[in-house]
Amino acid sequence: MKILASFVLAAAAITLAAPAQAQFAKPEDAIKYRKAALTVMAAHFGRVAAMANGRIPFDANVAASNAATAEMMSKLPWAGFGEATDKGDTKARPEIWSDKAKFTAASEKMQGEMTKLAMVAKGGNLDAIKAQVGATGGSCKACHDDFRKD
Amino acid sequence: MKILASFVLAAAAITLAAPAQAQFAKPEDAIKYRKAALTVMAAHFGRVAAMANGRIPFDANVAASNAATAEMMSKLPWAGFGEATDKGDTKARPEIWSDKAKFTAASEKMQGEMTKLAMVAKGGNLDAIKAQVGATGGSCKACHDDFRKD
Repeated sequence: MKILASFVLAAAAITLAAPAQAQFAKPEDAIKYRKAALTVMAAHFGRVAAMANGRIPFDANVAASNAATAEMMSKLPWAGFGEATDKGDTKARPEIWSDKAKFTAASEKMQGEMTKLAMVAKGGNLDAIKAQVGATGGSCKACHDDFRKD
Repeated sequence: MKILASFVLAAAAITLAAPAQAQFAKPEDAIKYRKAALTVMAAHFGRVAAMANGRIPFDANVAASNAATAEMMSKLPWAGFGEATDKGDTKARPEIWSDKAKFTAASEKMQGEMTKLAMVAKGGNLDAIKAQVGATGGSCKACHDDFRKD
């Protein structure tokens, strides 16, 4: 079952590797989309983090399910950061577009840490989950520090 | 490859069948979450619908990828309709809670139609996709008519 689950995770990651080919009718649609994807991801990651931090009881299945969803969600927001989406109802810093390579690297770092979390959560070891929640949360924060306005 | 893809879809559906076990700290978090999940789903479904309607060029891979993401997203919003989430920044009608069985049936109808769309889109036949976009869109509209305020 764990092998199957890992396969599904890996396969899902491939399926989602080119998720969007995004074509938004208007820049504000792209902004709304990326914020929504990050909101959904944060809700699921937050539930795993709450277990890691002891704020809610640890349930291995719930942690694994939420980590898997967070991982899938981590692939999506980036399609919403296209050209001409830097103005509007957004906290995005201009560096997202002026230093695209760094932003892409930060987003890929986070996706990688989220994938690791999904794998670790499947394993069900709370200490390992705690460590990886820290690493994953750190990758969220690093990107926010550099690319999101306060 | 198509067999693998179908397996992944089916397996992903199982993985996501109990996605949330949602515990939101505040009702407004649940409302924000469900709206975000529906926004992401609508963006991906909308891209398939735009191809079906000829508004953007048909690309079988893009259609399949977006339909698969829309299908996964279709599992998520429902965890955000818990108790005490009927008031606030929401167009949700009270019937969601007073006629829960009907709301659940409508949400399951939509999820089923979205799963069919993901399967059909994998097949790559535009006429079949058009027909299923119609059926899926109809299930969105039916639920909105009954359970969403104008």
